[in-house]
Amino acid sequence: MDRAFERTKILTNHLLLQSSDPPSSLSSNACLNYSAPEDSENYAFDVKEMRNLIDGHHVEERDWLFGLMMGSELFNPKVRGGKVFVSADYRQSMEQQREKTIKRIEYLQGKGVFEGWLTEKEEEMVLKICASLEVLSIFDHSIMVKVGVHFYLWGGAIKYLGTKHHHDKWLRATENFTVKGCFAMTELGHGSNVRGIETVTTYDSNTGEFVINTPCESAQKYWIGGAANHSTHAVVFSQLHINGTDQGVHAFVVQIRDADGNICPNVRIADCGHKIGLNGVDNGRIWFDNVRVPRENLLNAVANVSPDGQYISPIKNPDQRFAASMAPLTGGRLNVSVNAVYQSKVGLAIAIRYALTRRAFSLNRNEPEVLLLDYPSHQRRLFPLVAKTYAMSFAANYLKMLYRSRTPELIKTMHVVSSSFKATFSWNNMQILQVCREACGGQGLKTENRVGHLKGEFDVQSTFEGDNTILMQQVSKALFAEYIAVRKRNKGFKALGLGHMNKPRPVIPSELTSTTLRCSEFQMDALCLRERDLLNRFVADVSECRAKGASSEQAFIMCYQLGEDLSRSFSERAIFQTFLEAEATLSAGSLKDVLGTLRSLYALTCTEEGSYLRYGYLSVDNGGSVRREITKLCSELRPHALSLVTSFGIPDAFLSPLAFDWIDANSWSSVEA
Amino acid sequence: MDRAFERTKILTNHLLLQSSDPPSSLSSNACLNYSAPEDSENYAFDVKEMRNLIDGHHVEERDWLFGLMMGSELFNPKVRGGKVFVSADYRQSMEQQREKTIKRIEYLQGKGVFEGWLTEKEEEMVLKICASLEVLSIFDHSIMVKVGVHFYLWGGAIKYLGTKHHHDKWLRATENFTVKGCFAMTELGHGSNVRGIETVTTYDSNTGEFVINTPCESAQKYWIGGAANHSTHAVVFSQLHINGTDQGVHAFVVQIRDADGNICPNVRIADCGHKIGLNGVDNGRIWFDNVRVPRENLLNAVANVSPDGQYISPIKNPDQRFAASMAPLTGGRLNVSVNAVYQSKVGLAIAIRYALTRRAFSLNRNEPEVLLLDYPSHQRRLFPLVAKTYAMSFAANYLKMLYRSRTPELIKTMHVVSSSFKATFSWNNMQILQVCREACGGQGLKTENRVGHLKGEFDVQSTFEGDNTILMQQVSKALFAEYIAVRKRNKGFKALGLGHMNKPRPVIPSELTSTTLRCSEFQMDALCLRERDLLNRFVADVSECRAKGASSEQAFIMCYQLGEDLSRSFSERAIFQTFLEAEATLSAGSLKDVLGTLRSLYALTCTEEGSYLRYGYLSVDNGGSVRREITKLCSELRPHALSLVTSFGIPDAFLSPLAFDWIDANSWSSVEA
Repeated sequence: MDRAFERTKILTNHLLLQSSDPPSSLSSNACLNYSAPEDSENYAFDVKEMRNLIDGHHVEERDWLFGLMMGSELFNPKVRGGKVFVSADYRQSMEQQREKTIKRIEYLQGKGVFEGWLTEKEEEMVLKICASLEVLSIFDHSIMVKVGVHFYLWGGAIKYLGTKHHHDKWLRATENFTVKGCFAMTELGHGSNVRGIETVTTYDSNTGEFVINTPCESAQKYWIGGAANHSTHAVVFSQLHINGTDQGVHAFVVQIRDADGNICPNVRIADCGHKIGLNGVDNGRIWFDNVRVPRENLLNAVANVSPDGQYISPIKNPDQRFAASMAPLTGGRLNVSVNAVYQSKVGLAIAIRYALTRRAFSLNRNEPEVLLLDYPSHQRRLFPLVAKTYAMSFAANYLKMLYRSRTPELIKTMHVVSSSFKATFSWNNMQILQVCREACGGQGLKTENRVGHLKGEFDVQSTFEGDNTILMQQVSKALFAEYIAVRKRNKGFKALGLGHMNKPRPVIPSELTSTTLRCSEFQMDALCLRERDLLNRFVADVSECRAKGASSEQAFIMCYQLGEDLSRSFSERAIFQTFLEAEATLSAGSLKDVLGTLRSLYALTCTEEGSYLRYGYLSVDNGGSVRREITKLCSELRPHALSLVTSFGIPDAFLSPLAFDWIDANSWSSVEA
Repeated sequence: MDRAFERTKILTNHLLLQSSDPPSSLSSNACLNYSAPEDSENYAFDVKEMRNLIDGHHVEERDWLFGLMMGSELFNPKVRGGKVFVSADYRQSMEQQREKTIKRIEYLQGKGVFEGWLTEKEEEMVLKICASLEVLSIFDHSIMVKVGVHFYLWGGAIKYLGTKHHHDKWLRATENFTVKGCFAMTELGHGSNVRGIETVTTYDSNTGEFVINTPCESAQKYWIGGAANHSTHAVVFSQLHINGTDQGVHAFVVQIRDADGNICPNVRIADCGHKIGLNGVDNGRIWFDNVRVPRENLLNAVANVSPDGQYISPIKNPDQRFAASMAPLTGGRLNVSVNAVYQSKVGLAIAIRYALTRRAFSLNRNEPEVLLLDYPSHQRRLFPLVAKTYAMSFAANYLKMLYRSRTPELIKTMHVVSSSFKATFSWNNMQILQVCREACGGQGLKTENRVGHLKGEFDVQSTFEGDNTILMQQVSKALFAEYIAVRKRNKGFKALGLGHMNKPRPVIPSELTSTTLRCSEFQMDALCLRERDLLNRFVADVSECRAKGASSEQAFIMCYQLGEDLSRSFSERAIFQTFLEAEATLSAGSLKDVLGTLRSLYALTCTEEGSYLRYGYLSVDNGGSVRREITKLCSELRPHALSLVTSFGIPDAFLSPLAFDWIDANSWSSVEA
């Protein structure tokens, strides 16, 4: 209480001294002036250095691409409050947005942005591609998704499910867009349950062709990005029926449009229609009426059919075969994860800059009104989200490195980590954008201010490229399987960062001091304690159900709550680990200090939001100490607010008028005729 | 564990028996069929009776108004999957949406929908007006807001801030739309802090006119619904300067457009531009260049200026005067609150009907896939929200009755309850719509399916008509004031439902059985315990800060976290009370039984989501019992799912294709040429 009181005395004095504005008290009719946060706030650390750390790679290439967009009328530059802002024009019709998106991509291609994306050595390209997509997504989700589908999903399928013949035929053509690809996996009747899709392919040995058919309405391909207007080719996922046996889901290349854009014979295409966001992407639906494609169009890396119609696969186990054919999705999930982080950065940069220039209510008459960000409640709303976003940045960089160096041994780890990060980041992003929009008040609803609009644009992330709920179930199932496997070979935990399970169970001190709460060892202990305990409980409960005769699926369905808590605790521990590793690369100094504060805020936010009280990992008193420490950390971050969002490295033109002189931007002189 | 296991065995058998669909196993290429929930689910209670209970009043008038809309091409009827759906066409431009909205209002006026809204006896009209706005909002938020601003804000200001002269001149004219009103309170620089607005009005005794001026850009009126295109008149809130003293905020009637729609001299108007929702409402900005209006245009119920320029007010205390002049906002908050509830009903009706027809994954090969709603996790996602929505329905009806019978003594109660319900309902609604959209998967993003689109349309509710955060702060401050007042006169608590504070502190049993958890006395005890304890803590902490020299504002700012928990606990206890009262009106039977289950689910959801563990009101073990009971209640509600959403009484045409035969709606034959 005393500490809290001291802090507010400081806050209040700070307010009284700081402001250079005339008091806007009832009795005065002096006017509000906008003063840029840069004029009142100072930078306690090197924001360039911080940006290099959180962007992690290709900072110059990012700025080059930002520059390309700012340099072209195609990106719709508009002047507001004396500054130029680029943005997709969301007042245009769906059709206009789609055409504009294609034109932008053609322009970027002309500038060589996509060179080598599929044909150069992967290790060298992975991070560059990520950086480019991150920058594109900061401009607009639609352009990023169009490019992502073309390269990651279509291109990735050719690359990872196809063999040399397919690579030679389509990779270069994809890179220079002579072929425009889409990824036809999802159907009206089956999304998450890919193995249940109803499209059927048979083989005709007389002609050496596969015959692809949509047997019913529920089998129509659905949500296929690019199908409605632009794509010439599709990777079509289908059941493969050979001599009366269903060999399961396989991928085939089917041309759906000719070079002039005419839909091919025996292919029917319809539009998915208007969406709450992402209208620059032409999602479509496809029906195949016994379409015939040459035998070579089976992407045959995992299985093949001989000219005489024999099914051959090196992978005997159909489950493994199916898993292998889902490989292209990993890249898509990586892409979703990292882009979610950058959207949170856009939202927070806008909300915090606004809170540094918007005042509301004065503490006493004839005093200046208080800056929104000087209210402890407003700090409490935003700073934990800033900490989360920094944590996600480090985790995203880790995920990219993991993807770049993925080996057969790392496939499982990559699947589990990318699934849990994709779900966690996209859910965090929606929460962050919602809080930011409300923190901006009504201005958060103006489309040109971006923060509210991004919610509709990115909402899709929680259900596409794998439904978050299903992905998190897969994470808990994978942890269960790992646990069982380790116990079987009884050699101790190693994979999935579970090594801590071999150590003795961490003990939380009965009384948590500020020093302990800020200590990274304690923070890691707390996160590991929750993960290990939930994993033990989950295994116990699932096993008990099975012992009682439930199938493994039934058992998982019954224990879903523990499963949800477990997969969340896995994510947060894994994310925290990447934060520690990033921090460790720094030498002592102001940068490391502020990162330490953010790291503590992230860890304590996890322990407060998470299930610590529910499972009794924290006593009520310790829970109180955590809460008080969070408030304290927030007030310590207040002086760094501007630097923390400046470090996101987003050019002014990609934020919005609300982040700068919003009074001028709204002045009569700025009204468009 | 055993209980859980039993339940899942039942669930599984249920699945195997129930389904009449052919198995869509890997080896089969039989197709998914849509089977209407009505064919498999049965009604265990009378849904008509339930609807009467939750709609509460004017059920026939509601259906009449639904019918009017379904009967006109203006409401954009479209056939999907063999059914007709009406909806605003969100693919139209902002300008088209605005014009369409006006045309719809004119049509409804022609049908006599608005007759007597301002001129008939209020007691008789209040509920009818609410019912009409609820029905309009189910069609589209824009039409409801346009009507709401015109009648509640403009009309309400004339009625409650004006006197006979104003009533005679403007009420009838408003009712027949010869005058189109708007409500010019908010400014670019001041929203929540109304007392800080910068518009200045002086009095010229030579001409007997008020002179209204916008001294600076931050003083421009902002977000004024109706100002951009349609309004002819505005109630303008402004500082009133009389002989050099600022008498505070007062309301004046200013004509801003002539009958032909030309903007009046010395008035400048600009558009607020495109928003993430509500684009059928023409929000505008207004500048006044020393506009002159006759002395009579001061709405003088609370204060007046004599012809010779003397300021006269029966209310000496400027704070009370200000409070009195905010009266029209109460109706607006009532309106926001009740409409939020109906949006949750739309979202849940769609998500639950879809979950009763959409299958995903089978438990074992060659078994039918499982209906989404048969997954305990899916039930856990949706049913607590159904219970919340029922609770909000009863609370909304209570709030309407309170509004209708509001007396000077009840003004404070009305302000506190309407503020807390407005904030709670609108936040709940956004949470409910988000969960529903994700529960519908990608289909939740299709604009025509409504559920996702409603998020953008109703997001505004959390910050307009009073920012939720600020409103909740006012609730905790009011509870603080009440506590101090009661202690002073030491006569015991009575107002604001705090009577329970006079009783001994409730005790939570150390072991909570299922019977206890479902007992309404226990549930009320638990909610009262939290409220009383948080109120005591809040008062103690605030007082301690003040004892240390903090101003009362500083003290409240410092104790904001307790304040937030307190105002939430007040809302939930108050809502629960209305649930109990509604339940008490029923005689024993299936209807009362299912309501009892919903009531228990609502109460236990509050205790689980709320701060019970944080403050130690529940032990970890008891928390576990609460969680298990919630799962059990959800599975008990599963058979009633369809009846519970059918009881919302929303005509099929106002739901969306996803709630009915979504396979047919997506079939090739339904593709629009």
